[in-house]
Amino acid sequence: MEAHSVFNQTIAGIGGLDEAAVREAKRRLDRLTKPPGSLGRLEEIAARVAGMTGTLQPDLAKKAVVVMAGDHGVCAEGVSAFPAEVTPQMVLNFLNGGAAVNVLARHAGADVVCVDVGVNADLSHPDLIDCKVRKGTGNIAVGPAMSREEAVRAIEAGILVVDRLARQGYGLLATGEMGIGNTTPSSAIFVALTGADIEAAVGRGTGIGDEALARKRDVVRRAIEANRPDRDDPLDVLAKVGGLEIAGLVGVILGAAVSRIPVVVDGFISSVAALAASRLAPLSAHYMLPSHLSQERGHRLLTEHLGLQPILGLDMRLGEGTGAVLAFSIVEAAIKLMNEMATFESAGVSER
Amino acid sequence: MEAHSVFNQTIAGIGGLDEAAVREAKRRLDRLTKPPGSLGRLEEIAARVAGMTGTLQPDLAKKAVVVMAGDHGVCAEGVSAFPAEVTPQMVLNFLNGGAAVNVLARHAGADVVCVDVGVNADLSHPDLIDCKVRKGTGNIAVGPAMSREEAVRAIEAGILVVDRLARQGYGLLATGEMGIGNTTPSSAIFVALTGADIEAAVGRGTGIGDEALARKRDVVRRAIEANRPDRDDPLDVLAKVGGLEIAGLVGVILGAAVSRIPVVVDGFISSVAALAASRLAPLSAHYMLPSHLSQERGHRLLTEHLGLQPILGLDMRLGEGTGAVLAFSIVEAAIKLMNEMATFESAGVSER
Repeated sequence: MEAHSVFNQTIAGIGGLDEAAVREAKRRLDRLTKPPGSLGRLEEIAARVAGMTGTLQPDLAKKAVVVMAGDHGVCAEGVSAFPAEVTPQMVLNFLNGGAAVNVLARHAGADVVCVDVGVNADLSHPDLIDCKVRKGTGNIAVGPAMSREEAVRAIEAGILVVDRLARQGYGLLATGEMGIGNTTPSSAIFVALTGADIEAAVGRGTGIGDEALARKRDVVRRAIEANRPDRDDPLDVLAKVGGLEIAGLVGVILGAAVSRIPVVVDGFISSVAALAASRLAPLSAHYMLPSHLSQERGHRLLTEHLGLQPILGLDMRLGEGTGAVLAFSIVEAAIKLMNEMATFESAGVSER
Repeated sequence: MEAHSVFNQTIAGIGGLDEAAVREAKRRLDRLTKPPGSLGRLEEIAARVAGMTGTLQPDLAKKAVVVMAGDHGVCAEGVSAFPAEVTPQMVLNFLNGGAAVNVLARHAGADVVCVDVGVNADLSHPDLIDCKVRKGTGNIAVGPAMSREEAVRAIEAGILVVDRLARQGYGLLATGEMGIGNTTPSSAIFVALTGADIEAAVGRGTGIGDEALARKRDVVRRAIEANRPDRDDPLDVLAKVGGLEIAGLVGVILGAAVSRIPVVVDGFISSVAALAASRLAPLSAHYMLPSHLSQERGHRLLTEHLGLQPILGLDMRLGEGTGAVLAFSIVEAAIKLMNEMATFESAGVSER
């Protein structure tokens, strides 16, 4: 394919919800044996998924969390509680089924699809999808994370992975990521795209102390000053202060939207990718489903920017897609309620 | 058995958590491949369930939601959006598998155990457990709901149902209820036990308008004035301003606690029963697990009284145990994470 043609065609191909299906879903929900609206956000989720997929009976049997992995040059600044070597170690943990996201995916009947977009190590495993764009980003505190061309290639990696999953019949996706140091570029993207206050946008990640937190805030400030990302150009922001796996997740979300597959957005880093996706293609926001409220500072504000109010409050701060995979069961429950509950007529129950 | 002996023996038999199991669970959780504490409340749930059951590998395969049903004389005051005949209609809907709680229970791999503690109709169905104490309560706006003796019998119904489920190997329970009008006695119990403000404790239930809401608040005020329940005597409160299914749920919770079975507490009405249970037997609170934050006004305040912070925010207001059954999957996920994740050593992942 031509350079950027995948990216451009995807952006152009994303459409809105099927409003007729949304209306039909709402009509059905109001005939079920319950006070109108009493299932709350489960009704909203059911109607929205009907609109995304164009049917009240979407096939959600095949589910996957796409875990994008990449490394970060900014780790040289001492912004993470863990050494960078943990990124490839955790990728192998994912491939061997031992990480939290693996346990939760098995519990949900979902697959973990692991993609190397930019890990700074030579990895080889039959189940690893190799889309490596480069071995880690540059240090954003002093220069760009990557070139604009590389950012597009990372996004296209996500798009192409989802395109394959769509052809394999996957009906429900979630976003996940692994990349030691990646809350730092996530905060920088958040600040660059929204003008949010650095204090509000930078948190403790995997658990840094006060000193490292002050350093991390300074790093985000320097990253913005050194790179001057253009707020109105999401590709510029992703290239200058982003991350390869974050750009990959932007592609996962755009790819889900163009294939009309609901995609559950995980915590802070995934939400930053979702924000960038919604700036590149506003209609992509229709295909996003909420999951949990992360403990990471800034996530609540970010969910407000996204209009994606969390449904789970578990004080998690792990990433990997763990919160999103936990929400799979709730999305499936919403669809089952819409289709399997009795109506007032069929059950002989009196209405008010 | 002697009168009240089941009740008294149960109260006396409830013990605290197995602290050694809690410590062992926390040690294990801290060895898993994740930043310490990053699974948030999932870690807390896993450790608490270990403490309840005395093992890190509790058998949660058999799960049930116990739906207690009863009618309310106070419906004569026009406090509900639905006619009282809906109680027996919905009980049949539960037994035929068509209600929301049935769909969610099937989704969770759980059984719906339906108990008639006080429905004002002659019901007969092979799957209905008949523990009817009386056909509905008296109108609490003008007199007591039931006698103290009847309240104890309703509690004992819940205890005996759970005792049978425990012997059948059920490892995880949830509370559910059906009873048109039952948010009114629930609010009255809440006010009587805590001195909460009537404005804060009375909400719209299944969806009444402003006029009916004002009437409902007045009814709760009159119920407290007419009956003068003794705040320090939970049995007196349940008898005077309670409900048969609410007392039944108190028994379900006490029965779960004495059998060391985790019990997930549903929304407003179930939380009121949980509050009464914790007043009768403070150690019973150790066996309660949180579920959702109901849209019913007063539920948030009630969860604070209980110290049971919700984990699901779905704006539901249906009851039946629907929110609690949705939380089953999360409780199971917490236990699986504790047991199935790799440790830093086994996965060869570096620690900070």
